[in-house]
Amino acid sequence: MSETKNEHILLVEDNPNDEELTLRALHKHNLTNSIHVVRDGAQALEYIFCKGEYADRNIAKPPKVILLDLKLPKVSGLEVLEQIKTDIRTQSIPVVVLTSSDQHPDIQKSYNLGANSYIVKPIDFEQFTESVRQIGLYWLLLNQPIG
Amino acid sequence: MSETKNEHILLVEDNPNDEELTLRALHKHNLTNSIHVVRDGAQALEYIFCKGEYADRNIAKPPKVILLDLKLPKVSGLEVLEQIKTDIRTQSIPVVVLTSSDQHPDIQKSYNLGANSYIVKPIDFEQFTESVRQIGLYWLLLNQPIG
Repeated sequence: MSETKNEHILLVEDNPNDEELTLRALHKHNLTNSIHVVRDGAQALEYIFCKGEYADRNIAKPPKVILLDLKLPKVSGLEVLEQIKTDIRTQSIPVVVLTSSDQHPDIQKSYNLGANSYIVKPIDFEQFTESVRQIGLYWLLLNQPIG
Repeated sequence: MSETKNEHILLVEDNPNDEELTLRALHKHNLTNSIHVVRDGAQALEYIFCKGEYADRNIAKPPKVILLDLKLPKVSGLEVLEQIKTDIRTQSIPVVVLTSSDQHPDIQKSYNLGANSYIVKPIDFEQFTESVRQIGLYWLLLNQPIG
């Protein structure tokens, strides 16, 4: 299914409302042409490491950015982050933690594990939309990924 | 001089033109209220690790973001980056490499050493200004730093 696509955003989000809001915000600014959504940590790892249903992906063609929720079913966001950042094949992929948690331990642990950025989801709808727009513009258009 | 200030941006830049352009772009968008400029890698390390003329700084009050050029006098940007990212006291400070180099080895090494983001300086004046504006907005207003 996905062997020829080089998707630009991997969104790891189990909350359907937040997923919809994020996709709408990106769509509004023409940033949804290549986004892939997974809804738990296990599926995220399969996508990133090209296993299971994503065995036909090429690990050498990573997304430009991973937007990673922390509270996820099956495998936690912090565990996903750690696996990405301790594997030489994936450690250079920018990971933006996008979460409702503004708790210091979550922020501290995320940075210690190598998160590139940590963003607290705004509760306000308009602010959420604007934040997602800025995240998309920054990581898709401004930041220089590897390769 | 700086013991009571908690500066938000540390700009490490030896090129006077790029320094002026960056400051003007930030100023234009009211983001210069707390920026500190150092002009070589040795001075950057003194600032970040609170030594020498910066001995009165508090290492527990880091800038919200460090904008780091790679080609610097005295100590290279990559060496500065490595020292920041291998010290537990400073590894969580977001470091944005802001450089004229679009060379793959520089990008690869920067990410491997833990750069949070890598941005190639646009040659065009207007694009440079817009990029700096976006960098400032993202790291000062959107990203959640530690503490």
